[in-house]
Amino acid sequence: MIDCGEGTQFQLRRQNIHLNRLNHIFISHLHGDHFFGLIGLISTFGMLGRTAELCIHAMPVIEKLLIEQINFCCQGMVYNVRFCPINPNKHELIFEDRTISVHSIPLKHRVPCCGFLFSEKPTQPHLIKEMIDFYHIPIAELQHIKSGAGFITPDGEIIANARLTTPADTPKKYAYCSDTAYDEKIIPFIEGADCLYHEATFAKTDEARARLTCHSTAEQAATIARMANVKQLIIGHFSARYEQHESLLNEAKAIFPNTLLAKDGKDFLI
Amino acid sequence: MIDCGEGTQFQLRRQNIHLNRLNHIFISHLHGDHFFGLIGLISTFGMLGRTAELCIHAMPVIEKLLIEQINFCCQGMVYNVRFCPINPNKHELIFEDRTISVHSIPLKHRVPCCGFLFSEKPTQPHLIKEMIDFYHIPIAELQHIKSGAGFITPDGEIIANARLTTPADTPKKYAYCSDTAYDEKIIPFIEGADCLYHEATFAKTDEARARLTCHSTAEQAATIARMANVKQLIIGHFSARYEQHESLLNEAKAIFPNTLLAKDGKDFLI
Repeated sequence: MIDCGEGTQFQLRRQNIHLNRLNHIFISHLHGDHFFGLIGLISTFGMLGRTAELCIHAMPVIEKLLIEQINFCCQGMVYNVRFCPINPNKHELIFEDRTISVHSIPLKHRVPCCGFLFSEKPTQPHLIKEMIDFYHIPIAELQHIKSGAGFITPDGEIIANARLTTPADTPKKYAYCSDTAYDEKIIPFIEGADCLYHEATFAKTDEARARLTCHSTAEQAATIARMANVKQLIIGHFSARYEQHESLLNEAKAIFPNTLLAKDGKDFLI
Repeated sequence: MIDCGEGTQFQLRRQNIHLNRLNHIFISHLHGDHFFGLIGLISTFGMLGRTAELCIHAMPVIEKLLIEQINFCCQGMVYNVRFCPINPNKHELIFEDRTISVHSIPLKHRVPCCGFLFSEKPTQPHLIKEMIDFYHIPIAELQHIKSGAGFITPDGEIIANARLTTPADTPKKYAYCSDTAYDEKIIPFIEGADCLYHEATFAKTDEARARLTCHSTAEQAATIARMANVKQLIIGHFSARYEQHESLLNEAKAIFPNTLLAKDGKDFLI
């Protein structure tokens, strides 16, 4: 999960997201709307009897901000909360497992802040079940075929790998950039991403305010998306001053047509 | 406001309650569902430019739990947050102003916990405008009449106070008791209250669980209401195990008929 504002645990429940699937939380920066929901979530995990470790990737000071409440409110909790410090000034690997890696993206905000790039790792080609059955290929051979090998039948016929497999899925990249002023320095890190979430707090008419508060306009988000040659842009983090967001969407679409509006509870397919 | 769980600031907004009318928050005890919303509210007040002091009445340790977050997240805030310590073992006056007084009510829970008794102060009788006009009573006399005096007309006619006023409103009392095990010791403190909110976490079938967790059943809440001779009972704080609350309501009504169910966003007239 990325960021954890107040009420996140209720929002997760409303979305029917199983809380125990959540093992890593990435906090972009320490403004309240991005981390005030952590203590409630940590405490609820404790009451639900969670046993798996929960890793919170964030600026190091977060531990000092939460530790008194954790010690006081989560006595007897059987799982461990691990704080994994992020250096917001560096683009570096902060997490990886078998299927994914996560890199930090230094952002330009009023406080130390970073985005996150989620990169799927390459997967193996898919076996074509019908062909495997047809040639009676033994299970022991399957991993070789996935790794690119062909198959030789007992009669000595050579079956090319291409006839036994379909290509692996292309690994996807998702970049999350909030909160940030317009900053072209992030482009090399997000280049070609399948999906970019970029904040668009303000409309063009409030560009001066965007500069002052280290936020972006919808147009600036779209400009970054176009320059980084991403495939899809999602904009969000809209200022409360805008009652509807269609005009923000239109400002972005004029520059980067494949732009979508983030909205509470909405799913996006990457 | 009494208690401040996670998401309270959003709930207040949903109810169109003006945040700047809020100057005192009474925290019954330091379980997360009763105070995790404080930091968000304190921080939002700061961003809205609040200037009036905010008093948080709670167990003294609350300051230690919040101070790091307040110092870190609320820099440059122009208003003062004052922590007013409560002794949860004593029934004593913890706040009063011109119109109301608030007393603590020691409760029996797994952690130090207290309820609150809100008592309106007596008000003066109402002047009958038509009579004041009829007798051309000068403004200078009105306060004396409110204090019980009659009026002597220029012709020497004595007009009795009872003809010039209608009786003052009866001061109301509201008692809030959550979280608590069944405890008859609170009865003298809430005796005759116009409205009692009493927790009813469990149904009768889960009475053993209520005892174990220092909570009450609906029947126990109603028993307290009947013994304390209150006028109205509101039950709430229902365990998540109950999908509907009608059976809890019926269990309470069998003992104390004038029982109502608390529900998010519902208004009650006392």
